Amino acid sequence: MSVKILLNEDEIPRKWYNLAADLPTPMQPPLGPDGKPISPDALAAVFPMNLIEQEMSTERWIDIPEEVLEILYRWRPTPLRRARYLEKALGTPARIYYKDEGVSPPGSHKPNTAVVQAWYNKAFGIERITTETGAGQWGSALSFACALLGLKCKVYMVRISYDQKPFRKLMMQTWGGECVASPSTQTHAGREILEKDPDTPGSLGIAISEAIEDAVSDESGKTRYSLGSVLNHVLLHQTIIGLEAKKQLEKIGEKKVDVVIGCAGGGSNFAGLAFPFVLDKINGADIDIIPVEPTSCPTMTRAPFTYDHGDTAKMTPLLPMFSLGHGFVPPPIHAGGLRYHGMAPLVSQAIVEGLLRPESLGQVKCYESGLLWARTEGYIPAPETNHAIATVIDEAVKAREEGKEKVILFSWSGHGLMDLMGYEAFMKGRLKDYALPEEELRKSIASLDGLPKPPIRKTGRW
Amino acid sequence: MSVKILLNEDEIPRKWYNLAADLPTPMQPPLGPDGKPISPDALAAVFPMNLIEQEMSTERWIDIPEEVLEILYRWRPTPLRRARYLEKALGTPARIYYKDEGVSPPGSHKPNTAVVQAWYNKAFGIERITTETGAGQWGSALSFACALLGLKCKVYMVRISYDQKPFRKLMMQTWGGECVASPSTQTHAGREILEKDPDTPGSLGIAISEAIEDAVSDESGKTRYSLGSVLNHVLLHQTIIGLEAKKQLEKIGEKKVDVVIGCAGGGSNFAGLAFPFVLDKINGADIDIIPVEPTSCPTMTRAPFTYDHGDTAKMTPLLPMFSLGHGFVPPPIHAGGLRYHGMAPLVSQAIVEGLLRPESLGQVKCYESGLLWARTEGYIPAPETNHAIATVIDEAVKAREEGKEKVILFSWSGHGLMDLMGYEAFMKGRLKDYALPEEELRKSIASLDGLPKPPIRKTGRW
Repeated sequence: MSVKILLNEDEIPRKWYNLAADLPTPMQPPLGPDGKPISPDALAAVFPMNLIEQEMSTERWIDIPEEVLEILYRWRPTPLRRARYLEKALGTPARIYYKDEGVSPPGSHKPNTAVVQAWYNKAFGIERITTETGAGQWGSALSFACALLGLKCKVYMVRISYDQKPFRKLMMQTWGGECVASPSTQTHAGREILEKDPDTPGSLGIAISEAIEDAVSDESGKTRYSLGSVLNHVLLHQTIIGLEAKKQLEKIGEKKVDVVIGCAGGGSNFAGLAFPFVLDKINGADIDIIPVEPTSCPTMTRAPFTYDHGDTAKMTPLLPMFSLGHGFVPPPIHAGGLRYHGMAPLVSQAIVEGLLRPESLGQVKCYESGLLWARTEGYIPAPETNHAIATVIDEAVKAREEGKEKVILFSWSGHGLMDLMGYEAFMKGRLKDYALPEEELRKSIASLDGLPKPPIRKTGRW
Repeated sequence: MSVKILLNEDEIPRKWYNLAADLPTPMQPPLGPDGKPISPDALAAVFPMNLIEQEMSTERWIDIPEEVLEILYRWRPTPLRRARYLEKALGTPARIYYKDEGVSPPGSHKPNTAVVQAWYNKAFGIERITTETGAGQWGSALSFACALLGLKCKVYMVRISYDQKPFRKLMMQTWGGECVASPSTQTHAGREILEKDPDTPGSLGIAISEAIEDAVSDESGKTRYSLGSVLNHVLLHQTIIGLEAKKQLEKIGEKKVDVVIGCAGGGSNFAGLAFPFVLDKINGADIDIIPVEPTSCPTMTRAPFTYDHGDTAKMTPLLPMFSLGHGFVPPPIHAGGLRYHGMAPLVSQAIVEGLLRPESLGQVKCYESGLLWARTEGYIPAPETNHAIATVIDEAVKAREEGKEKVILFSWSGHGLMDLMGYEAFMKGRLKDYALPEEELRKSIASLDGLPKPPIRKTGRW
């Protein structure tokens, strides 16, 4: 009874897939403060030029440098696993497969882009990278990447996670990274927010502002900023997940995937698995592709498609995306990686085109699903991953009720060994769901008034 | 550049290897309170009979039940990895390979026997298992195993680890296990020790006493005790590690291993990798086989070979082993899994036969090595594993100095994501080495006076 489908190193994909080449409507450009498309040069203080080129590329396939592959081999190709034990527990005729991204040293999909970004930065002569982190997955992934490449790393960690997860900070330090709570007193952006609200739990938007400010204010010119999700080049690097999965399914003769599922905060984990299947869908395949978000931060399911800043202090260009407003501070759910006010422009555009079917879930149901997973499949999932698992279980139960042999594929984005406090709260009955009240939503998206709206030529849910 | 050697599920070994069949001197039997060899029946209240039979077996190869393989497939076969990045950092001509046992759901080698013991217990009609745990690796492995098989699990966790590692307890609970600090007030043994020393940090010996007492005092007869190391059947189950490693080395054409290394607390991790190579050594191969222990708990390097109890309250039979005395309470080093007063009888006998070359190390050097590992290879090792890594580095440096292309193989027994506080102490310069003072050693082994001594027919270091 096979439960793991492995690839050898020589079977690893050698190109990333760029969805921007295939979306029916071309991607709208990021806009500068003047409302005009931003030039690559305007981003040069923030990112190295080689990554800016990737960000703007519309090439369908982009080569993975050989030296990057040599780094990825530490944990890639990752196993494709079949969740036979869960299938049995559910009594479903569905075949459930998942890409296990928890096998990377930091335990999530994040290093798939962290090592790539670190490598391109180093190739461009950069010596120090700044970033933000929510739950801590991204900060540890970038610290890890910088350790391997001999770069310095500074991480601004959202305060609530910094306080809830002291071991995440130790993980970053073990890899040589420096980690401070955000908002911090080390940047103008941080100090300004602390003055207004000294007890703020922080947010990804605030932490991004601080990390960018830190990078652009280094006069040596040797510091750049790195983002763990949202941007095109980040999603690009993650497509290795879906490309590997395709090879693995082919290897065992699975010809048709019916449902593809991934949790989505900024969008990179979901996109990494899903985009190669979105291409199939564009080419006519019948696939149900579902990004899952928390009801407490309902970007895809309740926010408008608009231009908005990626951060609170409006330091980033305007990006065309679903956004709850750059000032939105999500409630303190345990899935810190899903607490982001916006959604990646590529994922957003794919939603507008009707290629995806977003869902939102409360965290209690997600932990219930994660616990069932841990006690059947064995591995303890990250709280973010539990959102995907809950949706997988829903789909597998539906397949049972319909008597259909569906093939369900999802991204197991990371393990939960660093996030056990959420399980404790769940087991003790202390965990709460947060649905965003209509009034708060209206108030938050009011901040979008006056910002440009991207044109919508074809509508999905719109 | 290949860094991972994988096996498919159909390549998994289908038999365990039993060193008891091949040791030049036959193993001495465990003795009862009367000083006479103990009968299988006398153990029946503690273990299920099917495992007692394995414990006493001298068959060379023992079949792994098909249903056990189905459980092991969740994470086995584990990757054999080549530590190319560390090799490069050291500039060594040695080729360093390691079995990555950190990929199991609880993150160590422990589930290799936990799921087997749970399976045999269930097959024997047992419904509840009790055990002890030091660092928490074993307690989480058994909780995990019991979750998969639908058994109840009660874990007595050494108090110092219980206090230092709250997340370990949550891990056990997530898998449905119940965890209490030992000594506890729930057993006679625990209460007696607490009365004498309310502030005791606890020890594995004490926790074993409590877990056995709990098991044998259940009047329903449906509870048994499970041990995570030391005993023959436990070491037997772990040999799948070394047997897989042999297949993997063969697969890439590595014909000869020069050095085999593993850390040893009770001995099961070390034995699991090493015993199949000990067989080669018995058959004439020239292999340096090194079990590594902490200087703070120098069982193999400074204790006598004697009969002693496996636990503090003398509930276990007398086992022939190296022992610091059943009352020995090791200092609070971070590698909790290496804090045991004795050493597995099979490992002990192999030392007496001159088949192994034990070493001992202070923890500061071990953490230094672990940090170098994390920043080159990427994965953060468990504090126990760092003992093996430090020895590997010593051997690789020696190979460089001698200009020899040695092949070094070791067991990467687990990841350190749940044990980051030791790294913090090391990075802040707060970590201390503990070498056991001669006076304390003498005092502790005085408790062995009057216990029978096993005959030594052939001597290694003796």
